Amino acid sequence: MRARAPLPVERLIEAFARLPGIGPKTASRLTYYLLRAPEQESLELAQALGEMRPGTRLCPRCFNITTIEVDLCEVCADDARDTGVVCVVEDPLDALAIERTGQFNGRYHVLHGAISPVEGISPDDLKIEELARRVSQEKIAELILATNPTLEGEATAMFLKRRLDGVPLRITRLARGLPAGGDLEYADISTLSQALEGRLEL
Amino acid sequence: MRARAPLPVERLIEAFARLPGIGPKTASRLTYYLLRAPEQESLELAQALGEMRPGTRLCPRCFNITTIEVDLCEVCADDARDTGVVCVVEDPLDALAIERTGQFNGRYHVLHGAISPVEGISPDDLKIEELARRVSQEKIAELILATNPTLEGEATAMFLKRRLDGVPLRITRLARGLPAGGDLEYADISTLSQALEGRLEL
Repeated sequence: MRARAPLPVERLIEAFARLPGIGPKTASRLTYYLLRAPEQESLELAQALGEMRPGTRLCPRCFNITTIEVDLCEVCADDARDTGVVCVVEDPLDALAIERTGQFNGRYHVLHGAISPVEGISPDDLKIEELARRVSQEKIAELILATNPTLEGEATAMFLKRRLDGVPLRITRLARGLPAGGDLEYADISTLSQALEGRLEL
Repeated sequence: MRARAPLPVERLIEAFARLPGIGPKTASRLTYYLLRAPEQESLELAQALGEMRPGTRLCPRCFNITTIEVDLCEVCADDARDTGVVCVVEDPLDALAIERTGQFNGRYHVLHGAISPVEGISPDDLKIEELARRVSQEKIAELILATNPTLEGEATAMFLKRRLDGVPLRITRLARGLPAGGDLEYADISTLSQALEGRLEL
């Protein structure tokens, strides 16, 4: 007896709710918003969704996301970038975040994840052998391990360090410490310990 | 010099970020999730988006959302529902919420918003005259004003009451008081005042 939303509405709610971090309530809200908004808005989102995957692929060198039309990604194809420094990240979003700082002029290597026994992600699932190959083929002087400061990110960095043991190469990692704008009082023990440990001369 | 995300990726991020409550960070997260998920997931969302608007329309009686194939919505077409009671709501989602209680067996009237001078929404922008017409044409014994307990919802309810002044009709509104599972200590003054005012014999 209880009436439900019309099927086309239900279907969109369900499709939205399948996205990570979008619960059924948010999915409903977005759907009913699009019911009232100009239809163009739904169509533009539909088009962008339909075109993203066919329009992108992984760069064969660094495995970052790039457009289908090019051989190498923007960074790898850029002659002005330092080919001797490679920043290893878990995801394309991490590379983008580092680009946004404007402080890095080397290249990237995107692992596409981190080692996680819990989630069943082993080193073989990541672009680790591809990195080892790059290290042996390209003239790389420094590898910056910029995996996340999480259990999985740490384990991945440690694994990489062991995997590349003996290769004449500087391996560094991002500094740990207090985040800018953070409050010492609210810093967790681990962050504060690392900030102490890594203290610098003033 | 700073590399950006590939254009098809940027476009999807922008399209997501246009949705209400989706900031640029969430939009990026959703986009990069879809880059890794099976392509089918993007395509299903795109299809649901493309089909929702063409597949739906407003019920000509109650103005709730319904499928394009039917004359009247599921509730209006249901002979088992009480035609003498009409619940007036701001949005289709509100009607769905009331349906979910399983406690209401009448029909609905969806106003499609609430009077809001700030947002420039006047009574003419809402389905108010359509409600007045229904009241004069259908045999309606009770109108339950289920607008939101907000300034705009209250104003809309007051406006409706004045607009229908003199019509032989019972006009009621949803009860105010403490929400189930709520904590008296944390109830706001207005809610607690209304709970006191509307107290019931035990």
